Amino acid sequence: MALIVQKFGGTSVGSIERIRNVADKVIASKQQGHQVVVVVSAMSGETDRLLGLAHAISPNPDKRELDVLLSTGEQVTIALLSLALYEKNHSAISFTGGQVHIRTDSAHSKARILEIEATRVRHALEAGKVVVIAGFQGIDDGGNITTLGRGGSDTTAVAMAAALHADECLIYTDVDGVYTADPRIEPNARRLDRITYEEMLELASLGSKVLQIRSVEFARKYHVPLRVLSSFAEGPGTKIVDEEESMEDVVIAGIAHNRDEAKLTIMGVPDKPGIAYKILGPIADANIEVDMIVQNVGVDNTTDFTFTVHRNDFAKSMEILKQTSKVMGAREISGDKKIAKLSIVGVGMRSHAGIASKMFGALAAEGINIQMISTSEIKISVMIDEKYLELGVRTLHSAFNLETNG
Amino acid sequence: MALIVQKFGGTSVGSIERIRNVADKVIASKQQGHQVVVVVSAMSGETDRLLGLAHAISPNPDKRELDVLLSTGEQVTIALLSLALYEKNHSAISFTGGQVHIRTDSAHSKARILEIEATRVRHALEAGKVVVIAGFQGIDDGGNITTLGRGGSDTTAVAMAAALHADECLIYTDVDGVYTADPRIEPNARRLDRITYEEMLELASLGSKVLQIRSVEFARKYHVPLRVLSSFAEGPGTKIVDEEESMEDVVIAGIAHNRDEAKLTIMGVPDKPGIAYKILGPIADANIEVDMIVQNVGVDNTTDFTFTVHRNDFAKSMEILKQTSKVMGAREISGDKKIAKLSIVGVGMRSHAGIASKMFGALAAEGINIQMISTSEIKISVMIDEKYLELGVRTLHSAFNLETNG
Repeated sequence: MALIVQKFGGTSVGSIERIRNVADKVIASKQQGHQVVVVVSAMSGETDRLLGLAHAISPNPDKRELDVLLSTGEQVTIALLSLALYEKNHSAISFTGGQVHIRTDSAHSKARILEIEATRVRHALEAGKVVVIAGFQGIDDGGNITTLGRGGSDTTAVAMAAALHADECLIYTDVDGVYTADPRIEPNARRLDRITYEEMLELASLGSKVLQIRSVEFARKYHVPLRVLSSFAEGPGTKIVDEEESMEDVVIAGIAHNRDEAKLTIMGVPDKPGIAYKILGPIADANIEVDMIVQNVGVDNTTDFTFTVHRNDFAKSMEILKQTSKVMGAREISGDKKIAKLSIVGVGMRSHAGIASKMFGALAAEGINIQMISTSEIKISVMIDEKYLELGVRTLHSAFNLETNG
Repeated sequence: MALIVQKFGGTSVGSIERIRNVADKVIASKQQGHQVVVVVSAMSGETDRLLGLAHAISPNPDKRELDVLLSTGEQVTIALLSLALYEKNHSAISFTGGQVHIRTDSAHSKARILEIEATRVRHALEAGKVVVIAGFQGIDDGGNITTLGRGGSDTTAVAMAAALHADECLIYTDVDGVYTADPRIEPNARRLDRITYEEMLELASLGSKVLQIRSVEFARKYHVPLRVLSSFAEGPGTKIVDEEESMEDVVIAGIAHNRDEAKLTIMGVPDKPGIAYKILGPIADANIEVDMIVQNVGVDNTTDFTFTVHRNDFAKSMEILKQTSKVMGAREISGDKKIAKLSIVGVGMRSHAGIASKMFGALAAEGINIQMISTSEIKISVMIDEKYLELGVRTLHSAFNLETNG
């Protein structure tokens, strides 16, 4: 008998019929003799409906009250799933985040889980019940309802699995696992049987939407065996596991891409200490996050400085940079929204030389110009012209033999 | 500075626009220098929507889980009203029933309030905030969410007013007070400035839908000054208060009517001890409530026995009575759904003689036959043919001069 945590997202519980299907999946696990804890999101569309009500009243709603409002979405789902389990003759009990003491900090709308007191869940499991828990929500020390931010239900599931020392945490989603590349771009993309926490973290931060980044961090920290699989199809999914020595044989786990960024450049800045701070300080003050940064030595003791931001922040960033340019006496500024980031990720990079040059060579052979480069221990990202994105993904997928076994 | 509890029902918070109007009413009280606690129901239609979801899954949903589901309705309203108050530059804080420790028994779907720990509410009031509380819900000792049953928000408001020793509890509804009779039947019906708890209790139990009966019991027990008034119109409403001596001058406070009942008669039952128990026992076992009961002596040592039940229970009751009739060897049974109950209510009856005969005389003068009579210390009810209901109401209203000052 194992203890399994199963997490189902909004699409998986998006209708009465789908909630019944989830109940069937839960019952199948139960009938294999497992103890089952289920974490669910709000029914798809519900969070947006609630946000719509809030915004009809207030363009900038108070965050504490918004959390009180949004947390009802998951509360509806836990009740309905429990009713579906009862209707299929299985005993169940639902809990809100507060009821199982998912204690968080007080950062409303993006709270972090501090601690889970799992006694009540354990008692219910021992009584033979399926335990159904509202994802995405918790309470702070003052007893106020908090939410973890979008995708937070993944984190709830992983944190609950850690608190219960569960044997496995299954994240059911609308894809059947983690792929070597986006199958909509690369038809030869292959589902990975396993991937390390670190690779998954890099993929998540590079734009893969399969798992929320914080849930992966949590799983890595507490060594929670994680698996991503489909709610709509059968299949083993992808296991996310601790790194083992043999895994370094696989040089590249996968390719990530992302067209959410835009590039800004300020040219001919007098090259003095502290220019990065002078350029990026006002951007940070406006609460805009910067991703890649490149600084080149220019002519005449000046320098060129390029960075990327989210496309949604592009207009605002250009405005700020215009001001900065005047203050610093720069020659000119420019911007480009039509860029894309292409990344290869793999723990095998640590022990294999020449990965970067192989990547650059493959792209060059297809005439794809690299505008910026950023590397970490297990990933290499390049910024390219957006129009080459699909070609770039396919080129790298083939160059690293990902269609077979990397 | 007074401490006021204001309660707004589902119709009063039925849309974003109406929630804004409620915010205005709350702010008006606040600006008069009062501390304000607001108790709200789910937006009209929301409870039925949630019930619809539950019934789509289960014809007979588990009551604990149904309470988890339904309690989200009020939680949405408290968040939206708080946002509306913020938007109008007033600081507010919302609480669910559980958050302010509205402790109830564990009778899901019809729980009773045992205790309220109002410290948190008091702190928020002292901090200058409007406190917005979810009606209709609480938690039991196990931390499970409970609901008080339909209309329970009135009880939440009164219980909260009692716990806070509030100066007044205002129940906003879609009528502007308690009337001497239903104005749709008697155009001369007059709004009462005040009425006693006992009279209000009788009126509520006799079919008046202005206030939920349990909330009036609670208000009487804890001497909570209560007032019923309209959310949509200005006006002083009706105060519900402890009885004072001068109030006995008003003999009759009002007239109630009710066409929800049906009558059943079993004739020619051998007159032996225990027949009432033998007839009504099986009815009670079927969970059917009996209202009026009359037993007449018949011929040949037999007796005729008549009682009334809710019309919805009529068919089932007739079936049960048929069985009882066989067992007891009764002569025959009969039933009538076309009856109506007409009642006069007033604490003045205690000190005024001849009220009953005045009532019976007025009805007789109009040719209205009385089928059954039931009295208490402060009310007289008669059962008549349904077709005379409107005529009966107008006849009594005029006989007791209710259009002026009773």
